[in-house]
Amino acid sequence: MAFTAKIAPSFLVSSHAFEQKSTTRACTQQKTKSFASNGSLLAFKQAMIPAVRASSARAAATVVAESLTFDTKIFEPETVTMAGEEEQILRGGRNLFPLLKDAWKGIKKVGVIGWGSQGPAQAKNVRDSLVDAGMDDVTVQIGLRMTSASCDEAREAGFTEESGTLGETFDVIADSDLVLLLIADAAQATLYPRILATMKPGATLGLSHGFLLGVMKNNGDDFRPDINVVLVAPKGMGPSVRRLYEQGKEVNGAGINASCGIHQDYTGNATEVALGWSVALGSPFTFLTTLEMEYRSDIYGERGILLGAVHGIVESLFRRYTRQGMSDEDAFKNTVESITGPISKIISSKGIDAVYEAIPADQKEEFMTAYCASYGPAKDILLECYEDVHSGNELKSVCMAVDRFDRFPMKKIDGTHMWKVGEEVRAKRVEDDIPLHPFTAGVYVATMIAQIDVLREKGHSFSEVCNESIIEAVDSLNPYMHARGVAFMVDNCSYTARLGSRKWAPRFDYNLDQQAYVAVDNGLKPDPEMESQFLQNPVHAAQATCASLRPTVDISVTAEGGDGVGGARDY
Amino acid sequence: MAFTAKIAPSFLVSSHAFEQKSTTRACTQQKTKSFASNGSLLAFKQAMIPAVRASSARAAATVVAESLTFDTKIFEPETVTMAGEEEQILRGGRNLFPLLKDAWKGIKKVGVIGWGSQGPAQAKNVRDSLVDAGMDDVTVQIGLRMTSASCDEAREAGFTEESGTLGETFDVIADSDLVLLLIADAAQATLYPRILATMKPGATLGLSHGFLLGVMKNNGDDFRPDINVVLVAPKGMGPSVRRLYEQGKEVNGAGINASCGIHQDYTGNATEVALGWSVALGSPFTFLTTLEMEYRSDIYGERGILLGAVHGIVESLFRRYTRQGMSDEDAFKNTVESITGPISKIISSKGIDAVYEAIPADQKEEFMTAYCASYGPAKDILLECYEDVHSGNELKSVCMAVDRFDRFPMKKIDGTHMWKVGEEVRAKRVEDDIPLHPFTAGVYVATMIAQIDVLREKGHSFSEVCNESIIEAVDSLNPYMHARGVAFMVDNCSYTARLGSRKWAPRFDYNLDQQAYVAVDNGLKPDPEMESQFLQNPVHAAQATCASLRPTVDISVTAEGGDGVGGARDY
Repeated sequence: MAFTAKIAPSFLVSSHAFEQKSTTRACTQQKTKSFASNGSLLAFKQAMIPAVRASSARAAATVVAESLTFDTKIFEPETVTMAGEEEQILRGGRNLFPLLKDAWKGIKKVGVIGWGSQGPAQAKNVRDSLVDAGMDDVTVQIGLRMTSASCDEAREAGFTEESGTLGETFDVIADSDLVLLLIADAAQATLYPRILATMKPGATLGLSHGFLLGVMKNNGDDFRPDINVVLVAPKGMGPSVRRLYEQGKEVNGAGINASCGIHQDYTGNATEVALGWSVALGSPFTFLTTLEMEYRSDIYGERGILLGAVHGIVESLFRRYTRQGMSDEDAFKNTVESITGPISKIISSKGIDAVYEAIPADQKEEFMTAYCASYGPAKDILLECYEDVHSGNELKSVCMAVDRFDRFPMKKIDGTHMWKVGEEVRAKRVEDDIPLHPFTAGVYVATMIAQIDVLREKGHSFSEVCNESIIEAVDSLNPYMHARGVAFMVDNCSYTARLGSRKWAPRFDYNLDQQAYVAVDNGLKPDPEMESQFLQNPVHAAQATCASLRPTVDISVTAEGGDGVGGARDY
Repeated sequence: MAFTAKIAPSFLVSSHAFEQKSTTRACTQQKTKSFASNGSLLAFKQAMIPAVRASSARAAATVVAESLTFDTKIFEPETVTMAGEEEQILRGGRNLFPLLKDAWKGIKKVGVIGWGSQGPAQAKNVRDSLVDAGMDDVTVQIGLRMTSASCDEAREAGFTEESGTLGETFDVIADSDLVLLLIADAAQATLYPRILATMKPGATLGLSHGFLLGVMKNNGDDFRPDINVVLVAPKGMGPSVRRLYEQGKEVNGAGINASCGIHQDYTGNATEVALGWSVALGSPFTFLTTLEMEYRSDIYGERGILLGAVHGIVESLFRRYTRQGMSDEDAFKNTVESITGPISKIISSKGIDAVYEAIPADQKEEFMTAYCASYGPAKDILLECYEDVHSGNELKSVCMAVDRFDRFPMKKIDGTHMWKVGEEVRAKRVEDDIPLHPFTAGVYVATMIAQIDVLREKGHSFSEVCNESIIEAVDSLNPYMHARGVAFMVDNCSYTARLGSRKWAPRFDYNLDQQAYVAVDNGLKPDPEMESQFLQNPVHAAQATCASLRPTVDISVTAEGGDGVGGARDY
């Protein structure tokens, strides 16, 4: 209660502030449809919110709904209620592909620039969607340095010079009506003046990350006024965007959610273009944000529970359990396997609080002890991380790190003993035998909730919070660690993410080890107030709403390759 | 060879650049005196430098000597040769106390602002030196918020309101001819406009850290022109500055070396004031730098081998050795004890390369394997750290962290299992039985050399390099970890240092663990070229020169208190 009341004011202020400064969108129609009674899980969760908290949360809700609405005449966004706050979202699905023709009116050439984590996935998804929509006159062309090793990969995927679907970066940019700029963040930071200058007037610059805005702000630069600038940011790494899109051919709507931001609307139809892009990628639902809020939550989130924090958690717990006498194999099962297996599955299908429910009565105290001990130390590092991202420090550090790559390239993170043990454990895995370890669950859930609470404090919408802290973790990333270990998860992501995970994982490790576990060893008991704040956290209801908006499809990541899975990228 | 040749150009550029931008000092007389044949250890080291390397190093030397000279008519600086480079330094000693009267002409009130790490030590040392010099008419007055808990500590040390030696911060500033600003860095960052405005025209602002300049640069601010701004930065934490000063009463010249920078000379005698201050503190030798080079090397150094790196090293090695089957007690002895005991003693008395000499022939390969495996991974993190400091990121992060103290104060770092083991090991310690572990020595020495090489690459003088990377480690800080563990070392330092150590220790830990130790386990063999670069590193000769400039006095830190030792500070 106290918690909700405390965050509401800053949320109000922040959402106003970023709305007024960062976007030029008009506020238009809302097509309201209530999902409050739509599915039994959601109904169950909504019923759990104490009436007084729900109403206090609702006080802040109208702001979001008013400040962030889709300016579209083609698509039909819906207003959904998340823990008492209303937000506009667009449900995706293959049934919307026929709308692409109108949404992308005037677009004949889509340039996909770069072939990293997002490039291959987005290029393939868009190409497939256009075929499905019967839009044979629209070309998807990959733009690369012709000396790049990625050219061969692109050719293997069917993008070739002969067919006019592979070309030199700046030639493709100059030619495209829609430029999907998916090169590495640090490359964007150095190349953006030339990229912007090369674009056609009236074309649309499509970003999948607000990073570039952060860099341009640091440099005091603006986008040229005669182009559209839009964001569609899938809340999952590229390979999962592709993998779930393919699964979506069987189960309509399966995919990775995306956030959408309209930063500059020169042609008057920028929202249509952006929503078309999101639909073509296969996003089950698309929610609104701004470029600034996107990069803050995204860069922070991947340093937190999505990559860095989960890595630090399992390293610190593996050490703890083996020191306590557990065998290496059991320690791996009770840390990594427990998180990527049962804990992720429960959160994905039933919510965070369902983990607590699933733990046997006689182990609930152990869960809650770990939770109470870990929440503060995790939040300490998370808040530091958020403020480093917000201040511009983290972006500057990424750019400096990339400049050092010629001397100090990124190296393997999974050569250590623990991850060798992991290989053996995975080889012998019986999925149903993976334990749900109460202490591990407590540490993991506490860190996830701490990440959520920091985002709420900083004014992020529930859609953004749930996607950046929960859905991306359990539905996109953890399955990759489950399949082949930590590097397969981390190093399938962007440079920014990979650098950030390397930087922040050890911070979580040390702080949990020095603070949380020491407190437990010194006899810490669960704090009833923290327990009740956890159980009553509004995010549980918000997450239930998010879950109701997409079909439950487990991403299928195999232990050995497969289209769209991608190999851990070159170091 | 290649190494020396490579660093020379950037060194030349940088030293010119910072000289031209940051100081207003005049370049004046040099009193040259050669120390090249002054002491057998030095002679031995100089003889070890291959002729060709020495001459190539000498090419860069004149720049330092020309660009950094003392503007003094009272003291007698000397020009010394460090690995072929000439530098001006001032030897200290109690025999110089009679010069204080001239050096501090016109100074009747010395305000010591703050009572943290440096405050008590400097206030007591200056007070004692003035008594010794017969300067009864000069008052040392402590400036504090009168509600501060430190007031009682100051009173216990004999600084009282009644005697006019304790007063309110801004009253003391307004009254003082020399203001020694020793409050926490972050407090300086917020209070400096009021502090500067309060000072008397013609007074001298004395800083013990260039941090404030970094903050003011970030803010686009300059110092008011009608005051002197000088730096005297003891290269050791406050308690060691006091402890060795007391020991200096028995052995003339014992103390902590200091760097000195004249940033603004309004009165024309700023150098005399600064050198008087350094002599009064008991600095065995004082070398010249600029405020900018000081804060870069200092903030970097404490994140590196001085605090953060050594912490990360021992944590990662303790884990490695226990996993390999060593008992907890033996692992502690072969990591922390080995470094704070024999390794530090050898480096302090005979130099870094003497560690290699001291290792038995049949263990030299193990040392060199650890060295070759660790040098790169350590340098990777060190270079990142230097650039984060240089770019202003690290200063901004410190200020943001301090702003979070009300929610997330710094916590204990030594509550973990390993440091509990350490307590038992220390209780049973037999000093002569502490092992010199070849692998531990290899990792530690590699990290120290990597830190040195980065500083040289970035244009720091040998005096600064040796003090920030070697002398401060083995003569000031490691003895504190030896006496009472890691927190007693780290948390006797400034907030900036304590935060930095917490932030960077885990980075060194992970990178060594993931890269260096994995490489060793995968069969890495010593690289003859790295071995020869290590043995021929010019820093060995430079360090020998530094060692010849001060008496060999081991700091006496007991396991239980003692004047000037200080307790680990409040969290």
